[in-house]
Formats: sequence, structure tokens, C-alpha cells
Amino acid sequence: MAKANDNYLRLPGNYLFSTIGQKVREYQEAHPEADVIRLGIGDVTQPLAPEIIGALHKAVDEMGAAETFKGYAPDLGYAFLREKIAAFDYQSRGCDISPEEIFISDGAKCDCSNIQEIFSVDNTIAVCDPVYPVYVDSNVMAGRTGLYDTAAGAYKDVVYMPCTAQNGFAPELPQGKAPDLIYLCFPNNPTGAVMKKDRLQEWVDYANKNGAIILYDAAYEAYISEEDIPHSIYECEGARGCAIEFRSFSKTAGFTGLRLGFTVIPADLEADGVRLWPLWARRHGTKYNGAPYIVQRAGEAVYTEEGRAQIKNQIAYYMDNARIIYEGLQSAGYEVSGGVNAPYIWLRTPDNMTSWEFFDSLLSKANVVGTPGSGFGPAGEHYFRLTAFGTKENTIRAIERIRERM
Amino acid sequence: MAKANDNYLRLPGNYLFSTIGQKVREYQEAHPEADVIRLGIGDVTQPLAPEIIGALHKAVDEMGAAETFKGYAPDLGYAFLREKIAAFDYQSRGCDISPEEIFISDGAKCDCSNIQEIFSVDNTIAVCDPVYPVYVDSNVMAGRTGLYDTAAGAYKDVVYMPCTAQNGFAPELPQGKAPDLIYLCFPNNPTGAVMKKDRLQEWVDYANKNGAIILYDAAYEAYISEEDIPHSIYECEGARGCAIEFRSFSKTAGFTGLRLGFTVIPADLEADGVRLWPLWARRHGTKYNGAPYIVQRAGEAVYTEEGRAQIKNQIAYYMDNARIIYEGLQSAGYEVSGGVNAPYIWLRTPDNMTSWEFFDSLLSKANVVGTPGSGFGPAGEHYFRLTAFGTKENTIRAIERIRERM
Repeated sequence: MAKANDNYLRLPGNYLFSTIGQKVREYQEAHPEADVIRLGIGDVTQPLAPEIIGALHKAVDEMGAAETFKGYAPDLGYAFLREKIAAFDYQSRGCDISPEEIFISDGAKCDCSNIQEIFSVDNTIAVCDPVYPVYVDSNVMAGRTGLYDTAAGAYKDVVYMPCTAQNGFAPELPQGKAPDLIYLCFPNNPTGAVMKKDRLQEWVDYANKNGAIILYDAAYEAYISEEDIPHSIYECEGARGCAIEFRSFSKTAGFTGLRLGFTVIPADLEADGVRLWPLWARRHGTKYNGAPYIVQRAGEAVYTEEGRAQIKNQIAYYMDNARIIYEGLQSAGYEVSGGVNAPYIWLRTPDNMTSWEFFDSLLSKANVVGTPGSGFGPAGEHYFRLTAFGTKENTIRAIERIRERM
Repeated sequence: MAKANDNYLRLPGNYLFSTIGQKVREYQEAHPEADVIRLGIGDVTQPLAPEIIGALHKAVDEMGAAETFKGYAPDLGYAFLREKIAAFDYQSRGCDISPEEIFISDGAKCDCSNIQEIFSVDNTIAVCDPVYPVYVDSNVMAGRTGLYDTAAGAYKDVVYMPCTAQNGFAPELPQGKAPDLIYLCFPNNPTGAVMKKDRLQEWVDYANKNGAIILYDAAYEAYISEEDIPHSIYECEGARGCAIEFRSFSKTAGFTGLRLGFTVIPADLEADGVRLWPLWARRHGTKYNGAPYIVQRAGEAVYTEEGRAQIKNQIAYYMDNARIIYEGLQSAGYEVSGGVNAPYIWLRTPDNMTSWEFFDSLLSKANVVGTPGSGFGPAGEHYFRLTAFGTKENTIRAIERIRERM
């Protein structure tokens, strides 16, 4: 008799953003007149840049003519895109990454959740707390996390690394037995915190010393505005020996609805003597069929001179929103962080409210949707995330409402 | 210390089509003058239909304007597409499938390989032999197949169901203990065989009796030309209680480079008392981020009146190729099957050559690429697959060359 994967049953409730969506839908059905502003899910609102739209139209035309039609994409992505990525995202920053080490995909969420598959189910994972839920949930599904302790809001076998105001929302090196797989995301989702280069170098050294692999999510690197903050983990010495990196076009160029990302696996990276590049290549070849040609052409357009300029403006637009939120909340007396090198603002809830209490209060009083910090892990309790991805008008209105009504 | 997933190391060699690609590249480098015709990988060659191109351009324009821009898609796909699928692919054929039971994805390959995740790793799988390699390989990666027996060309714990000339290339019900998960693909890849409705009904009854789940790959249903052959397993009575179905736009509408497919999971389908719909929904929400909006709009265009007419012509074009291959090989004395309700022609190699011997011979003598039957499983040895997805000109030339040079 067929049996379900029991591990799925260990997941408590819904995926965080599905739960939020459900709550907002219910509120709007009960209050159809409410003008709800969404600064919850990290979804962009600006249209695709003209250079990208032009590339898409051109590629669509190619798909409509026999001479230029494209069927299955190459397993690991088109060379035209992988070469641009290697040159602009890595070699320009002194990172020794070649096009062959770049795997094109339909987004960092898929890659971040699938990557655990190429590792032993006996490996121990370490995550920041709070953390993007996908890292943990994908490992729950794979059976790598042990049982969920409802009281603690944590899985028994996961190493949680608290990121608190005390450590500047960047984790300390684990004490005791080293975990095998270490998920790091900087600039961080949800806290908006960053890790300076010397601190990230400590993590690389730690991983190399202990044979751990760092799974480095750099989906928000385009938002870095300050110096001395690495855009890629490969800026650190020795990272080729211990790190896999994930990137996304979603936040960089507004591709949340277009779907494009990539993973970097250095050709010589090993886990206990087994090269990981061929394993991920095998997974791509067996369980994936490539990102659409037209979308890969859109990705290529991000690297043209016009594309880069247009994207830069778009990021500046969102980062101006981040400033508006940060300064507005700060002047209203909230304890805030993030928002300078990341599109996320992390605030402490007032009056010791729980994160979900603040969510409900914010939705009903100010008609503003944010994301409860506790949804990202136990250390996120009493925190709350707002995103800079709204329109400027809505962002200004949301902050006014928070100042007036909360 | 991080360790790799050992299961991956049980996979012998490369994914079949990567190996073929490599061999063809090597041949072309050695013989740059050779005009190689590819009838190997099942990739389409006709450009996208005008109706689809129009829908893509329109959707691209929407992505370029703030008022119509689309970010993240709904977890399970846009309603506009799910409703069309439910109406045209299911309800029109008397199948009781609702839009909510349809999960939009970036293709049947991904869905077919990911579906095993929601089942226990202890479940036994049964596959046709020969078989599309993705079903088996994805289960190898998950640790469900036991060791590979090189001599037998088979995994120890997999139930192989031989599909031979004797049984019309459609498997018999297993003897002895029932397997838990049964992969069926009809019209079949690679053999091009079909299963009539009464025979598929026997499988549905068998699965319901034994608590097995049928994973039904109907990616080629649009190629069915004869009566009494089910397009969907849900045409069989009781299938909602035991079957998951996969569909693809790749072969139906030329989307191999555009990426769109879907999976149907009836809301009430259970495995040992656990509903599967919520598990797959959770997987979608956690490990996937939706097919691109523009591609979902392209999928919608497949169902307009013009779209349907254009697609029908395209399928007729390929099926004319199938006829050319089938009749050409038959009159040249080959033993052939398939090609009537499927875009695949399955031929017995002459002179008892192995499948790979015939591959090499065909490539070097006729400069035609096909797919070795043994790549699909032990019972595929001494067989060979040709596809109808080439251009008509190339198909005619390929058959002429086979007749003259082989």
C-alpha cells in the first residue's frame, strides 16, 4: 500500500506566506472597503525595465519563426547568460568563478530548497534564527530535522544560530560539534542585516576547518550600498573549497513573476571526497528542464549598459522606500534595523506584543500587511518585517498610517 | 563533515540524453562536414503557433507597465489557466476534475521526478520496461531503488514490467505482492504504444484493490488518433481514488523551450489515510515559485479557438512525419511499432545488433541520431526509438538515408 512521506506531516501549519495570504483574504472579504497596503511578502511592484521588455519581445519573435525557434535549453543554461553572469557578477569583483560553474534555474527558492538533496540525509543543518522558512522546511520534508517542538517553535535536530540585536543580527560561530551544512543569507532576509567581509571570512575558515559546506544565499546582494560588505562569498579566501552560492534575478531586476536565478558550485568543491558539481549537474539533467529561452534572454538584458542603468534606478527606488520606512518608524519611536543594505526593515514590536498580535493589529488598525518575525523562527518573536518593495506612494501612506493609527 | 547523497552515486553514468548529446558533439567535432539529422531527443522543431506568440507579446507588454505588472504567481497557478484546463482537457471528456485539483508547473519532467517526494521512501515502485529514465532515476536519488545490478541493467528493488512485442508493449498486472507506486505512461514514451480503455480500467481496479497509486504520465495524449483510447486516466471509473496524472504543453503545443505542464491530484485522493493534495500543495508552496505569468498566458492561448486549430495542424504535421518514418522503415524490412497514436516509432534493430551498436552505426553511416532502446531499460535492448519531431524535410531525408546506407 502506498504511504505518504511522514516527514511532511511534521511541518506545522502552512507555509508562512500562504498563511498570511489567507489572513489578508479573510480580512478583505470581511472589510471589502478597506484599502490594504501590502508590505508583507517580498514581492516587487515596479514593472520590468524597458531593456528587459525589449529583449523579451525579441526572444518571443524568435520563438515564432522556424529558423530561430528554440526547444529544450542546454541542461545547465545558455552560455550567453552564464558568460555574462561570470563576467559581471564574479570576475568583475575578483571572484574566480567560470561560466561552467554557474547553473541557471527558475529561481533561488527552488535552488535553495533543492540543494539539500545532493547531501546525505544524515547531515546536520545549521540555520540563522530568524530565517527564510524554505531552508528549514525543505529539510523537514527530506527527514533531516527530527521532530518539531511546538513549545520551542523549533526542530530537535536543527542547529539554530540566534541573530539578535546583541550580535547585530549576524550569527556567532557554533560551539561544540560543527554542523555539516550551514545556511547563510546576507544581506539577510528577514532582518536586513549584513555581514562584513572579515566576519564572513571567519565563517569560510570555520567551514574549511570542519569540512562543512556553506549554502550562501546572496539573493539581495544588489541592495548593498556600503563598502566592505561582500556581494559574493567567493570574495573570501578559500570559499571555493566550502561554499555554494545562490543568486536571483527576482529582487535584482524584478523577475519575481518571470522566474530566473542561478546557483554557483565550484568545479572542485567536495563533500567528504565526493565532488558536488557532477551531482548537481545530474540533478539538473534528471529533474529539471531549464529556464525558458525567452526568460534567459531577459536575464541577459540585465547586463547590457542600458539594462544595468535601468536596474540601478529601480533598486534606488526601492531603497528610497526602505529609507522612508526606516526613518519614519524610527522617528515614531520604533526600534528598527536593516534597510540600508537590504530591502527589508526589521522592527521590534511595541509593548512586547507577539509578532502575530502586531500583524493582526497592523492589519485591522492601519490596513497594512507585514510579516510576523516569529514566522521566521523562535528568535524572530517580538519582531516584524516590512519590505521596501511597495510603490513609493503606498510606502509613504503605510508609514503615515502606522504613525497615526498604531 | 558534510557528506554527499550516496544514492546519487548509484546512478550508472549520465542521464541518457546527456550521453547522446555528448556522443553527437564528439562525432560532429571529428566530422565537421557531416549533416547530422536529429531524431533522437523528443524535442519539437516547429515554431510556436501565432496565437501563442500573440499571447506572449501581450503578456510581455503587461509586465512592462506598472498597472498590469505581475509579481509572484499564485502558488498553484493562475485561475485563468487552471479553469481552461479543467474545462477543455477534463470536463469535455466527462472527467470529474476541478480547477482546484490542477497544479501548474514548469513541465511534466519536473513533476514526474518530484512527485515521489510526497511518498514514503519505503514504498516500492513499479515501472514499465522500457521506460522514460526520469521515473527511475528520481527514485534512485531518493534511495528507493536499492543497488544497481550492472549485468541485469536493473535496480534490485524496482519492479520492472516488461513491455514487449508479445504483450503489445503494454504491461501485465504484476504477480505477487503489489507495488505501492506504479508509473504508467500512455501513449508511451519510448515505444509509442497505447493502452485501450478496458485495459487501463484493469490497472485502476488493481490499484484501488491494493492501495497502490498510479502515477500516470499523459504527456502525449494529444497525439492519440484512434477511438477507445483514453486521453486521461480519469476516464476510467474509480481513478480519482488511485491516480495522479501529469500533462505537458511541450509536445502538445511546442513548449519544450517555454516550459509549462501540470499535475492533477484529486482532492480526496489518499495514501494509507493521508490526503495527497495538501502534501503536493505544500511542496509547491515551499519548493517552487510558479511558472512565469507570460508562459501561463501562452498556455491559456492554446485553448482559444484559433489556438486549438493551430495546434491541431502542428500535431498533424508531426504525425505525418511519424507515418513517413513508420511506412519507410516497414517497407525497408524493419520491424516497427508505435507512430499511430504517438510521435515515437519503436523499431527492432537489424541483425540482432545492440541498441548502442545501432546508434553508432546509424550516426556514422546515415548521420542520423536516434535513441538506443536499452537506454530506457533492459527490455529495450535490441530496440531503437525515432521521433516524429523533426522537420518534414529532415524526416524524409533521414528515412532515405536509412534505406540507402544501412
